[in-house]
Amino acid sequence: MSDTLDPKIAGRLKRNAEGLVCAVAQQRGTGEVLMVAWMDDAALHRTLTTREATYFSRSRGKQWIKGETSGHTQRVHEVRLDCDGDTILLVVDQEGGACHTGDRTCFDADELLAPPPA
Amino acid sequence: MSDTLDPKIAGRLKRNAEGLVCAVAQQRGTGEVLMVAWMDDAALHRTLTTREATYFSRSRGKQWIKGETSGHTQRVHEVRLDCDGDTILLVVDQEGGACHTGDRTCFDADELLAPPPA
Repeated sequence: MSDTLDPKIAGRLKRNAEGLVCAVAQQRGTGEVLMVAWMDDAALHRTLTTREATYFSRSRGKQWIKGETSGHTQRVHEVRLDCDGDTILLVVDQEGGACHTGDRTCFDADELLAPPPA
Repeated sequence: MSDTLDPKIAGRLKRNAEGLVCAVAQQRGTGEVLMVAWMDDAALHRTLTTREATYFSRSRGKQWIKGETSGHTQRVHEVRLDCDGDTILLVVDQEGGACHTGDRTCFDADELLAPPPA
């Protein structure tokens, strides 16, 4: 197994100025959108080769293996790239809460617009 | 109806250097992740007040009402903000294909990692 990202994949990525692509993690089966984070090439490579969701923490400036500290890991079922190459979709099995607050998803706490009346 | 974003919402946003937040559009019911795009305050305001998904096109440098040209609109059912205020989740009813290629979602065409063998 190579220790760098497959050049055929690397060539399809459209990274931002920081060298990152956006990554959306979605729970397999339920379809819940769990969180959005960022990946550099090394994080994507590690995700694809280990099936452990791995991101790049912009605040800490380093690789971040999801759940390494909390135990709230994401087992990666499937990975897809979007049409313009700047966003990754991860279909995962989330262990526990995806959010650092303990919530199941990072979108649970703050509703900006409620569903319309039925 | 105000013509600018509610200050109580604006104050919770953590915009990037371009003044944008990330936005994930998800189909109501099926949970499909349709696309990821970007919003400035005006686009979010328009989305919240009209229930028509409205983004900011980084390539064109202007507001982009989804489906205005293609007819592939997104009727907004619910809007949520994530825990750190930099990502919006839109639950929508997508008319036709969300992707400019005609695909249902922007993630249909390029699989980077297939599901593991059953």
